[in-house]
Amino acid sequence: MEHIKLFSPATVANVSCGFDVLGFCLDSIGDEMVIKKTKEKGLKITKIVGFDLPFEIEKNVAGVSALALLEDAKPDCGFEIEIYKRIKPGSGIGSSSASAVGSVFGINELLGRPYNKLELTYFAMKGEALASQCEHADNIAPALFGGFTLVKSVAPLKVLQLPTPKNLFAVIIHPQIEIKTSEARAILPDAIPLKNAITQWSNVGSFVHALHTSDYDLLSQSLQDVVVEPYRSQLIPHYQNVKEAALKQGALGCGISGSGPSIFSLCHGEKVAQNVASAIKNIYSQTNIAFEIYVSRINTKGVNIL
Amino acid sequence: MEHIKLFSPATVANVSCGFDVLGFCLDSIGDEMVIKKTKEKGLKITKIVGFDLPFEIEKNVAGVSALALLEDAKPDCGFEIEIYKRIKPGSGIGSSSASAVGSVFGINELLGRPYNKLELTYFAMKGEALASQCEHADNIAPALFGGFTLVKSVAPLKVLQLPTPKNLFAVIIHPQIEIKTSEARAILPDAIPLKNAITQWSNVGSFVHALHTSDYDLLSQSLQDVVVEPYRSQLIPHYQNVKEAALKQGALGCGISGSGPSIFSLCHGEKVAQNVASAIKNIYSQTNIAFEIYVSRINTKGVNIL
Repeated sequence: MEHIKLFSPATVANVSCGFDVLGFCLDSIGDEMVIKKTKEKGLKITKIVGFDLPFEIEKNVAGVSALALLEDAKPDCGFEIEIYKRIKPGSGIGSSSASAVGSVFGINELLGRPYNKLELTYFAMKGEALASQCEHADNIAPALFGGFTLVKSVAPLKVLQLPTPKNLFAVIIHPQIEIKTSEARAILPDAIPLKNAITQWSNVGSFVHALHTSDYDLLSQSLQDVVVEPYRSQLIPHYQNVKEAALKQGALGCGISGSGPSIFSLCHGEKVAQNVASAIKNIYSQTNIAFEIYVSRINTKGVNIL
Repeated sequence: MEHIKLFSPATVANVSCGFDVLGFCLDSIGDEMVIKKTKEKGLKITKIVGFDLPFEIEKNVAGVSALALLEDAKPDCGFEIEIYKRIKPGSGIGSSSASAVGSVFGINELLGRPYNKLELTYFAMKGEALASQCEHADNIAPALFGGFTLVKSVAPLKVLQLPTPKNLFAVIIHPQIEIKTSEARAILPDAIPLKNAITQWSNVGSFVHALHTSDYDLLSQSLQDVVVEPYRSQLIPHYQNVKEAALKQGALGCGISGSGPSIFSLCHGEKVAQNVASAIKNIYSQTNIAFEIYVSRINTKGVNIL
């Protein structure tokens, strides 16, 4: 194989109760990439369509993660990357992770798969660190493995693949405002009440149990965030209205995607998801804030060849 | 049925990562009770063997929980309870819960099971509140339902029954010292670092996943407590030595049972459990502290008729 075209999906991290550890993978939103093997060694980004991102390897997330892989693999060839960026940077649905994951997945395929997905996670984290100033994997893991994932630990890196109930849909609204990651992080307290921490880990435990048992009611009861949402929701205009509307239309839960500004809802069935999307659209249509809205299945494959 | 003899098991709450929510049920340690239906209305405790506990209904955990049930059921008969207490009060393996669970389970059987186990949990919590000054269910739930349980919430009361991997054994050492519940509680901070909270809910999530997948390695990696153990372990003499010895002998994990002073280890297979028990016994034999040691299967039935 000399070249490959791939889909690198958007992802939702945190998933209400699972700040910094849970994530899931989307199906209808993602970047595309074309990667070509070249005789000449080295790495080039030859095309970026969609958003204005740097072509310099060391300044580009896809470049940095690819470089981490190539420094380990030391292949006798080089690679050229074309990036068709559809996920807006700073959207809160794993834009940088999609870039980081796409390049390492594609190059690994062209090299005959010398690395497994856990090793690819490690390389992709190097790219993610360029975007977010720290190595984390809560968007990378679902983008690579698909479905729901739990990053048990980063050092040593341990990723758990959780089951995906069959009839689950996500609704994503992305209000086109900018929240700086630094601001979203600074707003969080260093310490939290033990009482709230207990509520949160009870919810994480019951969320994992609900995925294993396809218990949609329990899933709904577990999609609660008493730790991060009270702070970060303040940065997202009309957050409470969106949440109320989503729940009123039957969403199982509604929360902040990653560090925002995107808001996700999880729904049992496509019909509920479409109703939730309409209701949310209606709220943001009455504001002067531009937005994108998506209805998506849970993507159980993760990044894949087109 | 006019009388019943039952086994009400000891339990381990918290289970390292799951402070206040996780618990499991033991097989080889527990109280026995004999409960008789009487024509005369009312409730009497007619016999207490093993430990010096009050016969007054309102001062006895088994009495208070039974009373809560009877006030709701309003039966045309009364009950007499004999308690054969084998679990020492204040041991940290759910002594009061065993009393509370035994009386409501037994009376419910004699009444023809008008209540389900969740309703019995509610009544038993009234008795537990007498002993610990607050209504919680992390020992009651495993004593009633058996196996591993997660108390998702107390109000509304929601108990999840988690799967029990086949070949799991517990080792319990009960050093015969007294830790006041008030002291064990006062030593805990009101707030904890967010970083530690994340580690803990990651472990709760992976622990639940490990039970569902019978993944003993993951179970071991999840049996970590960065929140409570650093404080409460100070109250238990030789705690670190016991833990090191248990892990060295192949225990999957070792932690404080409830609020202590008992220490539990979980082991894959009976042989490992016996080795762990020997090693721990060896440590405490060199001290002047009296102790009891138990090796037990996980009791998947919970409280049951003998």
